[in-house]
Amino acid sequence: MSFMLPLYNNPDFNTPPFIDAPTVFFEKIKQSGVAPKNYHATSIYPEYLHVQKGKWSLLRESRMDCVVVLEEDSDLAVKEFRHLMVGDRVACGRRENGEDGIFVHTEAFDFPEYVSQKFVFRSRITRETSFSIDYDKLYDLLEFERQKGFIIWVLGPAVVFDRDARDAFVELIEHGYVHALLAGNALAVHDVEAALFGTGLGQEIYSKQTVELGHYNHLDAITKIRSLGSIKKAIDEGLINNGVMRAVINKGLPYVLAGSIRDDGPLPEVIANVYQSQDKMRSLTRRATTVIGMATQLHSIATGNMVPSYKVVDKNQIRPVYFYTVDMSEFAANKLANRGSLTARSILTNVQDFVVTVERGLRKRFI
Amino acid sequence: MSFMLPLYNNPDFNTPPFIDAPTVFFEKIKQSGVAPKNYHATSIYPEYLHVQKGKWSLLRESRMDCVVVLEEDSDLAVKEFRHLMVGDRVACGRRENGEDGIFVHTEAFDFPEYVSQKFVFRSRITRETSFSIDYDKLYDLLEFERQKGFIIWVLGPAVVFDRDARDAFVELIEHGYVHALLAGNALAVHDVEAALFGTGLGQEIYSKQTVELGHYNHLDAITKIRSLGSIKKAIDEGLINNGVMRAVINKGLPYVLAGSIRDDGPLPEVIANVYQSQDKMRSLTRRATTVIGMATQLHSIATGNMVPSYKVVDKNQIRPVYFYTVDMSEFAANKLANRGSLTARSILTNVQDFVVTVERGLRKRFI
Amino acid sequence: MSFMLPLYNNPDFNTPPFIDAPTVFFEKIKQSGVAPKNYHATSIYPEYLHVQKGKWSLLRESRMDCVVVLEEDSDLAVKEFRHLMVGDRVACGRRENGEDGIFVHTEAFDFPEYVSQKFVFRSRITRETSFSIDYDKLYDLLEFERQKGFIIWVLGPAVVFDRDARDAFVELIEHGYVHALLAGNALAVHDVEAALFGTGLGQEIYSKQTVELGHYNHLDAITKIRSLGSIKKAIDEGLINNGVMRAVINKGLPYVLAGSIRDDGPLPEVIANVYQSQDKMRSLTRRATTVIGMATQLHSIATGNMVPSYKVVDKNQIRPVYFYTVDMSEFAANKLANRGSLTARSILTNVQDFVVTVERGLRKRFI
Amino acid sequence: MSFMLPLYNNPDFNTPPFIDAPTVFFEKIKQSGVAPKNYHATSIYPEYLHVQKGKWSLLRESRMDCVVVLEEDSDLAVKEFRHLMVGDRVACGRRENGEDGIFVHTEAFDFPEYVSQKFVFRSRITRETSFSIDYDKLYDLLEFERQKGFIIWVLGPAVVFDRDARDAFVELIEHGYVHALLAGNALAVHDVEAALFGTGLGQEIYSKQTVELGHYNHLDAITKIRSLGSIKKAIDEGLINNGVMRAVINKGLPYVLAGSIRDDGPLPEVIANVYQSQDKMRSLTRRATTVIGMATQLHSIATGNMVPSYKVVDKNQIRPVYFYTVDMSEFAANKLANRGSLTARSILTNVQDFVVTVERGLRKRFI
Repeated sequence: MSFMLPLYNNPDFNTPPFIDAPTVFFEKIKQSGVAPKNYHATSIYPEYLHVQKGKWSLLRESRMDCVVVLEEDSDLAVKEFRHLMVGDRVACGRRENGEDGIFVHTEAFDFPEYVSQKFVFRSRITRETSFSIDYDKLYDLLEFERQKGFIIWVLGPAVVFDRDARDAFVELIEHGYVHALLAGNALAVHDVEAALFGTGLGQEIYSKQTVELGHYNHLDAITKIRSLGSIKKAIDEGLINNGVMRAVINKGLPYVLAGSIRDDGPLPEVIANVYQSQDKMRSLTRRATTVIGMATQLHSIATGNMVPSYKVVDKNQIRPVYFYTVDMSEFAANKLANRGSLTARSILTNVQDFVVTVERGLRKRFI
Repeated sequence: MSFMLPLYNNPDFNTPPFIDAPTVFFEKIKQSGVAPKNYHATSIYPEYLHVQKGKWSLLRESRMDCVVVLEEDSDLAVKEFRHLMVGDRVACGRRENGEDGIFVHTEAFDFPEYVSQKFVFRSRITRETSFSIDYDKLYDLLEFERQKGFIIWVLGPAVVFDRDARDAFVELIEHGYVHALLAGNALAVHDVEAALFGTGLGQEIYSKQTVELGHYNHLDAITKIRSLGSIKKAIDEGLINNGVMRAVINKGLPYVLAGSIRDDGPLPEVIANVYQSQDKMRSLTRRATTVIGMATQLHSIATGNMVPSYKVVDKNQIRPVYFYTVDMSEFAANKLANRGSLTARSILTNVQDFVVTVERGLRKRFI
Repeated sequence: MSFMLPLYNNPDFNTPPFIDAPTVFFEKIKQSGVAPKNYHATSIYPEYLHVQKGKWSLLRESRMDCVVVLEEDSDLAVKEFRHLMVGDRVACGRRENGEDGIFVHTEAFDFPEYVSQKFVFRSRITRETSFSIDYDKLYDLLEFERQKGFIIWVLGPAVVFDRDARDAFVELIEHGYVHALLAGNALAVHDVEAALFGTGLGQEIYSKQTVELGHYNHLDAITKIRSLGSIKKAIDEGLINNGVMRAVINKGLPYVLAGSIRDDGPLPEVIANVYQSQDKMRSLTRRATTVIGMATQLHSIATGNMVPSYKVVDKNQIRPVYFYTVDMSEFAANKLANRGSLTARSILTNVQDFVVTVERGLRKRFI
Repeated sequence: MSFMLPLYNNPDFNTPPFIDAPTVFFEKIKQSGVAPKNYHATSIYPEYLHVQKGKWSLLRESRMDCVVVLEEDSDLAVKEFRHLMVGDRVACGRRENGEDGIFVHTEAFDFPEYVSQKFVFRSRITRETSFSIDYDKLYDLLEFERQKGFIIWVLGPAVVFDRDARDAFVELIEHGYVHALLAGNALAVHDVEAALFGTGLGQEIYSKQTVELGHYNHLDAITKIRSLGSIKKAIDEGLINNGVMRAVINKGLPYVLAGSIRDDGPLPEVIANVYQSQDKMRSLTRRATTVIGMATQLHSIATGNMVPSYKVVDKNQIRPVYFYTVDMSEFAANKLANRGSLTARSILTNVQDFVVTVERGLRKRFI
């Protein structure tokens, strides 16, 4: 079975309450970075603003917990608070049903698999939930997205601590299932350590043997890259000839390595300013149609905050954005589940097995 | 690479301190089920008793936390406290280095992969530990054991809640990688529910759809089997034509379904008395060369308590017994790690992925 | 603020659909232990059966996943499948709204604190949920129940591994906040070990020092009690002069020690047959008005299966039965949350802190 | 019992192998931010460098995974790689026993409670470990440190989601048990939200009621502070009159709010550049004698990376630095345990209970 996009329920703005709704009130920013009283905050759902009588405009590249700014050309931009500038006209109103000229479309898609259930019995995802179908759907989805979508992977370092998982993820990159990578310094450092020394934090990533003075390896890897100036340089010089970063860079895929206070080094590519990181991440997530976050609460939740539940593609088609979290803990899964969207799904397992299994599941579709 | 048994270090009883050690003191039981003061309690390690001057006898079918009884024929039996009878002669002495005529051989095997490590850095198994090599070693081990050993699987119900995991485990049974099954009522009930209705606790085990009145399914499954008298009857009548219990029964494999206070029903095959269950479980674990416990703390720890770290095979060859725990939580892994044996290993992941991956890894070796 | 029972919503059986509903169909059992086709399975909710025209009888001592048997005297008994005898008349019908003469009353109580919430935002209980109010409510509830209710505690061994937690729980017993105890062999063994040797599995329960040959202590504790014949004997002889079991026994409180396949020993008081254990547990849970399960999935879930969400007290007053689970893991909490009752609550924390905090919170109310 | 510092084992450098050891080789940096080949990386332990014949200098303000730079005045500075400047003289050598003129003193302190244990039985910290003594020791330690030390608390947002925990932590601040605070934007945002609206992410922090439009509260809190320019301004204007940030600011305590990619807002006090955050954090951790990290892996591990296991106080006295992690998960505890220091301890519980319990335990010592 191949993947099909669910239909979008176009709201009918020619009926009440929309037909009688006021247009949105926009208020000008007087202090840079500070929203006006009664600003409207965006959600993950498609939202329409009644900008002029009879014309409801969809927010095209939304993100949660931002404000809507009316641009010169009547376009609507969704901006983080810190980007607000004096003079920006910000949409106001907190009622979400149209009464303030704002409509938050919480039931935008017809999900075929979704059946409203009266019983809460087994409604929660736990480690005992059956995941076979999720894998199968994911294969279909990834195959579809490889050609028509934009797949962002968000990676914690666990993926590169294990040889098979690291190799499997490289295969996914090579065969077109990865369109952008979001990660931190640690992912890149441990991946480079594996390429240079065959170890992760001093342990061989296959045999798990601790090598002599192995605790120096990640520092030596950092030092080597810093001396060369970039990971790319190390690849070009033939020092790095395997791994995730090499595959990403050789394919020319966009990536963000966001700095954190845990970083050693850091590597030259790492962005020190977290809000610059956010901006870079958002510039990629604007294009996302599927996001898969693996074994990193920090980066997965950060990305989850940026990705709306829908995307406008091919001019005016509206489709869902799928968001998968893969983690060992129900706690992490519950955190993401609070998004409250049917497009957010969790698979509770070790990411090593997840990546290896997904690569195997897709292998027969490799060209 | 194929699996090789590690060498056994035969103790040299002709050297001190053994050469001068006393013989073991045995004391007669005066009260049924009650060990004498100063009884010796067994460990998971090979233990030798100095039964008569110059003759050190190995405990052949040991289990932890039991006592050693000298039989009529000078054999040594390892008995649970509750099985002690008046007149039994119980070994006494708590020093483990020979001084009481008892030697606990904690370094019995030369594990090739084991290198003593000074640094505790990354010494603990977590979800970020690399598991590729564990899978590969496990394939080799299972292939070896299929022919020469006795593999016991200890199963929690999670395995049968998922279609692919359930199917994969059936394949393992069919191809000879399962020699005995230890589980509880729930495993069998949910497996039978899946066979009869395609559901697990009312959810389809592939689509996860909740079916109409699905919460009756597990009770209906129980009722059906109770009315027939046995799972076997339901298989013979063609009502059950897939699943774990069918594969086990059709292959004639021994199994124990141990009752617990959580049980609904129970199914007719379930043993109500927990100490009878223990006895049955131990009668199987005596033969074990590899044990794999998946997603069940209760049954895995119970089994772990019964399995020594070694087994005497082919008359007098002594080999290790391997014990794997597969679970999502570090807590469960740490619990088992307290066994303190190099033959106890943990893989931290979802058992669904584990079983599916193992079946795929072994498939090329299927005949 | 003191605790007040929520009001019970009495169904009005003089209105549709009840007024026109048929009486329940009862079918006779033909095979012992096997329910008839179309049997009705009980839930945790108050259920009314239309036994004769115009007379709807409430199930008085219900439990989940059982069947309803019409007794000689027209009373309704709720029986486990395994207790069904040939000739028993079992209620049939699976529609729960009265159409089969059966009404499952899922909205029985007016919970003052409960407000239906549209947003799922933060709807799930996690370790980050605020628990202050839960403690305060629990103090009020326990004070109320001490005088008017029946409080059952379900204990895992963790409570007695820590000196302060063990002492605090003894205080709760002494001051009347414990009316019955459900546990396993391990709880009693480790409590007795602490009384006899000051250790838990060989570690001092305060200093955590491992004592010489400490791994013998739990076996020695078992042996001592087995030799005496009962824990009570050890108390009477002055060997045990502190701890949970002593407090329970000296107060004459009912308790059940249910055997499991993990048991060493066992102690003489432990019940070997799990279905006898269930029967004993249910004979106590019939009286329960509040149940608190701490750090034991096995026993907590087993008990949860037996406790309905309501109890008939003082002739015909109907009140909720409160069920608290205290555990470290979201997984365990989610398991219990599947009961789907507002009377089931979880506190996610270490039970040591929980018990110590509850004892402190109640101390000022001690007489 | 009051707290006593353990004795420091002064190495005797007049004995072999030290007496014959070479002096350390220092190599000049040629490229900014890049260490020379064979640089020595620091550990958490006291380290001595043989800077001139017969003179072994202790690193005074160390941190793990840095390099040692010989300053103009012969002092030794411990620097992060990114701070290395051309011309810096960096210590080289990787043998840690003196052979390279570097001695890593891994057994620096005589811990009275520490007894070497042969058995690994129960050696790992789990949720079932007894923690009573850890609390008692912590009370004594905190009382000692209040007067003579420097206590840094590292806080995740969970502490301020609960009213009692938040109040308890404020008490600890008011009574002198907090000397510096390390946290992120979220801690401050949710604390301010609680002060302004009584909620955490829209839920009342005591009643857990979700208030109308509550999901706006944290954004409104951010907006309010941004409009005023600082949290301090909101305190001065009387808008914020309770909570953690107010207590910290009113007491004039140093604090760092380190930005992360998950941040909304951020608040004006938050540092955007993670390496600036690290520098600020390190400027505080240089003074630390005890660190307590609660419910935040990111910040706790980041801080753990900066804190050595010892501190030089009062001119030349050397004492341990204690590091506590309080978390719900064994995974987090294991992560920190990899530091391999006896001064790193974990308490596995919900931080709400932890803070409330610690405040109660210390209350009688409040002046």
